[in-house]
Parts: sequence; structure tokens; C-alpha cells
Amino acid sequence: MSGAEPENTVVASASSSAQLVDELITAFAEFSEPDSGPGVTRPGYSVLERKAHDHFTERMTQLGLTVHADAAGNSIAELPGNEPGLPAIGTGSHLDSVPQGGHYDGIAGVVAAMEVARLIVENKTLHRHPLRFVVFAAEEGARFGQACTGSRIIAGLTAADDLNDLVDGRGVTVASAMQEIGIDPLRVGDAKWRSKDWCAFIELHIEQGSVLMDVQLPIGVVDLISGSTRLKITTHGRASHTGGTPMHLRADALTAAAQIVLAAEALANDDEHRGTRITVGRLDVHPASITTIPGDCEMYVDIRDVDSDRQRDAATAFIATAYQIGHDRAVEVGSEILADASPVVLPVFVRNTIVGAVAEMGLGYRVMPSGASHDAQMINHVVPTGMIFVPSQNHGVSHSPHELTLTPDIVRGVDALHASMLALDSSASHAAHD
Amino acid sequence: MSGAEPENTVVASASSSAQLVDELITAFAEFSEPDSGPGVTRPGYSVLERKAHDHFTERMTQLGLTVHADAAGNSIAELPGNEPGLPAIGTGSHLDSVPQGGHYDGIAGVVAAMEVARLIVENKTLHRHPLRFVVFAAEEGARFGQACTGSRIIAGLTAADDLNDLVDGRGVTVASAMQEIGIDPLRVGDAKWRSKDWCAFIELHIEQGSVLMDVQLPIGVVDLISGSTRLKITTHGRASHTGGTPMHLRADALTAAAQIVLAAEALANDDEHRGTRITVGRLDVHPASITTIPGDCEMYVDIRDVDSDRQRDAATAFIATAYQIGHDRAVEVGSEILADASPVVLPVFVRNTIVGAVAEMGLGYRVMPSGASHDAQMINHVVPTGMIFVPSQNHGVSHSPHELTLTPDIVRGVDALHASMLALDSSASHAAHD
Repeated sequence: MSGAEPENTVVASASSSAQLVDELITAFAEFSEPDSGPGVTRPGYSVLERKAHDHFTERMTQLGLTVHADAAGNSIAELPGNEPGLPAIGTGSHLDSVPQGGHYDGIAGVVAAMEVARLIVENKTLHRHPLRFVVFAAEEGARFGQACTGSRIIAGLTAADDLNDLVDGRGVTVASAMQEIGIDPLRVGDAKWRSKDWCAFIELHIEQGSVLMDVQLPIGVVDLISGSTRLKITTHGRASHTGGTPMHLRADALTAAAQIVLAAEALANDDEHRGTRITVGRLDVHPASITTIPGDCEMYVDIRDVDSDRQRDAATAFIATAYQIGHDRAVEVGSEILADASPVVLPVFVRNTIVGAVAEMGLGYRVMPSGASHDAQMINHVVPTGMIFVPSQNHGVSHSPHELTLTPDIVRGVDALHASMLALDSSASHAAHD
Repeated sequence: MSGAEPENTVVASASSSAQLVDELITAFAEFSEPDSGPGVTRPGYSVLERKAHDHFTERMTQLGLTVHADAAGNSIAELPGNEPGLPAIGTGSHLDSVPQGGHYDGIAGVVAAMEVARLIVENKTLHRHPLRFVVFAAEEGARFGQACTGSRIIAGLTAADDLNDLVDGRGVTVASAMQEIGIDPLRVGDAKWRSKDWCAFIELHIEQGSVLMDVQLPIGVVDLISGSTRLKITTHGRASHTGGTPMHLRADALTAAAQIVLAAEALANDDEHRGTRITVGRLDVHPASITTIPGDCEMYVDIRDVDSDRQRDAATAFIATAYQIGHDRAVEVGSEILADASPVVLPVFVRNTIVGAVAEMGLGYRVMPSGASHDAQMINHVVPTGMIFVPSQNHGVSHSPHELTLTPDIVRGVDALHASMLALDSSASHAAHD
């Protein structure tokens, strides 16, 4: 069958791709919680996320693909290949968002997958492997603290038993959230992928950083994905009257928390931690009254690194510093690990296939790490996975209404993804037959 | 009429006072928002505050007093004096609370007033002046940002026009909150007191500090009340992905806010500001997601001092420091003055009358300033006003469920208040006749 390659030509059809990309990005942005402020708010395992998945399903069905929702709420569209029995090549990303997020995080990868599917169908491109176009459920950790729930279930990293442990801000467990939208949390194990069914997977994603914009290159090829240790740090002081309590008699939970926030920043900026990123993204203050010294604070901390040891060392050092600050201020400090994922090295053969395809198209690229976590990191446990980054504008701002990736950049990403998938189809077929 | 004094004896009836005080403190604590966490939550101009006022009215009416609710929601119970045409002597405090507040702030002063009324009625004590027992509405600034709304209206410091300017956390104006509980905000001007109707006023209050506990004295006599400048400080940075954004490219609204919180603390602790108290009681972070660098923060800051110049100098220096921090971090800082009240020197003759009465009873006392604002500060604009403090336990913790004043200390306060009011009745009568 090796003589078949010349029949396939990558037809990039840039103008119609641009139109379709624009149209889809706009369509998905409509699924957002009303009255949730600027940007898009579409939590994982919410009715709105389901509506976005339905829109994907509808479009893929119209194109002639077979679509099914798996037991964990992931949506999978399939184009059968010419050669029966071969494992699948996949692409896809997610459609949920953080609160007040942007139009592109996750969505760009789904839109690129949809556009690749359209190009292959409309060009009647021959391919041997089944091609699968996937929307993962609940990728963002914003709602339940844990990221990538849909892809973790696929990879067997999260099981039915785990779904009662995590709760959102309103006390709803993952299991209850699933039940509310018609997913049986006891059956999620059925969504697990078997490695033998899969050949390779490529996720396209916006960079969420400014490297590609700074070096003016259209494509990033990811080699490493940062690990992330997520902590909850609490400070417990003494709520007291702001007028009646002299400064030296206070046990102010917020001044202690403020010092811990700055200690996190200082730790990430010190000489030993170049590359470590530490953020306190959320800080809740109680009782939150202008005339009461805060008695309690909760901080949510995200520690990221591409070096596993440095990531854990930073977390340990940070927790020790927080306890020391509490000790010095007579404020009680508590800590809890919410989630902990190691950095991932993506497999070389998928990366090299992407690099080859991109180079052949004459597109500039950079091999680079990902600071953000992605579904790719999880499914790499069961399928060899690669990632394509497209440039983020506005200094790489993401998880924000100001998140922006230009349509021509997404279209170049579509072309790179399209060519890489066909290259995998071709080379991996050979491998399967050699 | 000067021969009448010997007929009056202060009967302290300690055991029954203790019982009644306990019973009333417990009864008022019942009026609290369900599901609002620990402690008492009874906002100003809420249905619950009205229920607490109704309980006061009911008890005072049973005792034979005439009670009326004025046009601003303050409740006033009266015992007529023997000598027609004399101005009134008053006492009282407030029944609203901060969120998750204690059982004593304001309530102790109302309970003491009720117990003095009972002692005078049951002992058939002769008095020349009308005696008035007052519950001020909406003393706490927690709900609308401005403290002492009921007593400000009484003093003519807040008028109908001002009631649409202040909103609570849900966007409800003072005017709307009043309407919801049957108060016509356009008519609040009718509640204003005329100086000629009043002889003097004494508010009993818990100390909300630890001075009396530290020096083991049962009574504080207040000479000065701190001023309070209340600010809203905002920081506006760039919300962005915690993994994708390197430390040096961030504009983190929370690290800037944390530095401002610590600058406030440092300013209050420096050599030039001994006595200044600066607190950030509330800090709201947006979008409050563990994977998003905070883009916006709002801080609510309370600056208190008994020295008017030092209070304003501290506010000016603090705002300048906040702007400098914003400048250094490329984070936009904004500031707004929410309220600004000068320190108040209470009149000497009321203070001396209290000191004389307390000394005659053999109770130890200290003349001391008040760090907290009080209704006394407002009504002193129209009536010469004094204040009696009773000790706070637990290091003076207040605005907290751990707020505690022991019943025997409240009873000693009742005795001091009772004696001081009768001393005013006697001495002020003389003055009126001399």
C-alpha cells in the first residue's frame, strides 16, 4: 500500500479556512454564562459546555462523520480509514473555559480539528488509519481544582471513585455535576482508551505565552509540558475591630497572607528558580468587612515548572516559608495539596513528524516547552502525543477576555496539523506494515 | 427643688440585673441571618434589625414607657420627668451588627439602657428631666460603607439626598433598604434632634480593645473618639495564564495589592504614626481562578487616629505609596475616599459627671480614647455626650464571634450609667434653675 501517498495533496484552501475558523470561534463564544462579567464563562460539566459539544457534534455529523459522546462526556467524531484494523490518529482539544476567559483557549484546537476534518472530507483525501476528532470535557481546573478531568478519565488517571472528592465553589462534586447533565459518574471507566486502538494524537493549542510573537514564528512544536503543583494555603488570625485593636495586638490573617503572596513571587524570581512560575490566583478574605481585621484567608497557589525536582523543591520551600511567616506573626498557617502533576516529555517520533511536515511546508517553527497543562499531557499516557502551538497576541495573555490569536495564525496551524496528521497516516502505516 | 436628691437611692440590685442582662443578650443574639456562618449577622436597615428594635419596643412598653420609632428607624423610649419643660437626658446604643459579629457590640449599651430604665421604674426613682432610652439604626459601616447612619440623620449630618449615594454589596441603596422595611427615605429629615430638647447623653459600649482588661479596671470614661478615613484602593493588572506567563512578563494585580497591604501595616507601625491604626479589612480578587494571574483587586482600607492631622497625613502618605507600588509594578492603581470623619473631643462636663459618679461608687476607672467610631460621636453634634466603656475579654476581640464581655462587667457598667444619669439629672437641673 505504500504507493498511495502521491494521491494525497494537502489543499490548504486558506480563504475558506479563514472564514470557517472565524465563524466557528464566534459561534462557540456565544455559549457563555449570562451576567458573568467580561469574556467567556463556560465551566466544565455545565449545560453550556454540553451545548458547545452539541454544536461540534452537529457540524461533524453534517460533514458525514460518526460522532459519539463517551461515558465521561468527551465527544469523538470519526472518519474511517481505508485499511481495516489500523489504530486511529487523533486530534482535538477542549471547549470549556475559566471564569471570564477568552475565545481561543481549547476552542482553537477544536476549531482546527473541525477544519482539518472538513478539508479531508471535501478533498476526499485518502487515509489508511481512522481519523478521530476529539473534544475533551472539563479541561480547565478552575471549577473543581483539578484540570483535564475528561482526558484524565480517558487515560485512566481519574476513576469513578475520585469524582466525589472534588467540589466546586458551590460545594457541587464532579459526580453531581455530571449527573445534572446526564452523565452517569459510576460508568466513566467505560471511557478509558486502549493504547492498541491508537496510533498517535496531536493537540493544537494557542501558546498562552509570548515566545512565538516575540520571535515572529507561526508554529511552536512542544517538547515538554510543565508540571503543576496546586496548593491551598490558609491563614487563621483573630478577627477584631479595626478601631479598637492597636497594631501590636493584632493577628491579621490578611497581612500574613499578603506576605505569603509576596514570598511566592520572590521564590519564583530567585536565582535557583529561573523557570519556576508561582501564582496566587485566588485569595478569599473573611469576614471581608472594612471595620474588621481579617480573621481568615484562603489562598490558591499554582506552582509550575518543566523540571520535576525544581517544581517539588519550590513547593516545599514555599510551604516552609508560609509556615515561618505564620509563626513570626502568631497567625496559624495550614497547607493542603490540591493536585500535583509531573512535567511530561512528549514522544520524539510525533514531534519529529510535526517538525518534518512544518518544515516541508516552509513554515518557521520553534521547538519549545509548554508552561500550561493540556489534555495532551494526560492522553500521552495511552497514546503517543504531540502538540502544535499557534501564537498568542497581547503579550500572550490568556484566561482573560483579552486573549487573542489571529485567524491567519490559526489557519497556518490548521495547515500544519492537517499535514502532520497525513504524514503520521503515511509513516505510521509504513511502520505498521514493516 | 434642690432638696430632692436624698429621696433617690441608686439600688444596684446586682443579681437581678445580671439575670436580665444575660436574658436580653441571649434574646437579641437570636436575631441573625440563617446560614451566615459563625456569630451574629444582623445588617443595618434589615428585617432582622427591625425585629431586634421591636423586641426593645415591646420590653420598654411593658415597663410603662412610651416608645416611638422616628423617621430614620431609630427607636426612642421615654420616661417623663417631674419637672415639665426640662430638656432630656438620654442613653442608648445600636442593635445592628457586622457580618459574623458578636453578641455585645452596640447590644451591651442597649441592654444597659433597658436595665437602667427598669431600675428607675421599679425603684420609682424621682427624676426631673425626661429620660430617653434610644436604639440607633444602622450604626455599623459594614453594609453601606458609612457608619452611624441613624445617628448621623439625628445629628443632621446625613440627609435624604445622601441616601441614594451609598450601596451595599448587592447594589441596594440605603434609600431602597429603608423602603423595604417601611421607612420613607424622603422623610428622614423629621428625625433630626433639636439641641434645645436635650440636656445630655451617655452611651455605654464595650471597649473593643484590651486596655481595661490589661489594667484590670471595670470602667473606661471616654475623652476622645478616633477619626476614620475609609478608602477603596484598586489595582488593575493583566489577567493571564499562570502556566504560560513568565514571571518577568506579569502585571499581577494581587502581588501589587499584597505589597500595598503590607505598606499600610508598615506605615501604621512607623515612628511617625504611633497611634494610627490602618487596616485592609476586605480584599476582592478577580477573576479568582487558580490558573489565572489576577487582573483586578479592590481593597477597602480603614485609617483611624485620635489626631486629626496625623489621620489625614497617614491617608495621604498611604495613597502615595500605593501609587508608587503600582508604578513600580506597571499595575494601574486607583483610589477613592469612601468616608472621612474627624476625631471628636467629648465635652468635659459630661465626662466629669461620669467620673464623679463612678468614683463615688468606689469603682476603678480610666479616662481613655476610643479607637472605634460610635453613635456618640455623631449625636455629640447636637447633644453634649459622654461614653462609658466596659471591658472586652479575649484580647479585646470585637466584630467577631469571639467578642465577649462578662455579665458582671456589664452590670457594673449599668450601675455606673444609672448613677451618672441621675447625677446629670440632679446637677443639670440645678444648672437649669441657677
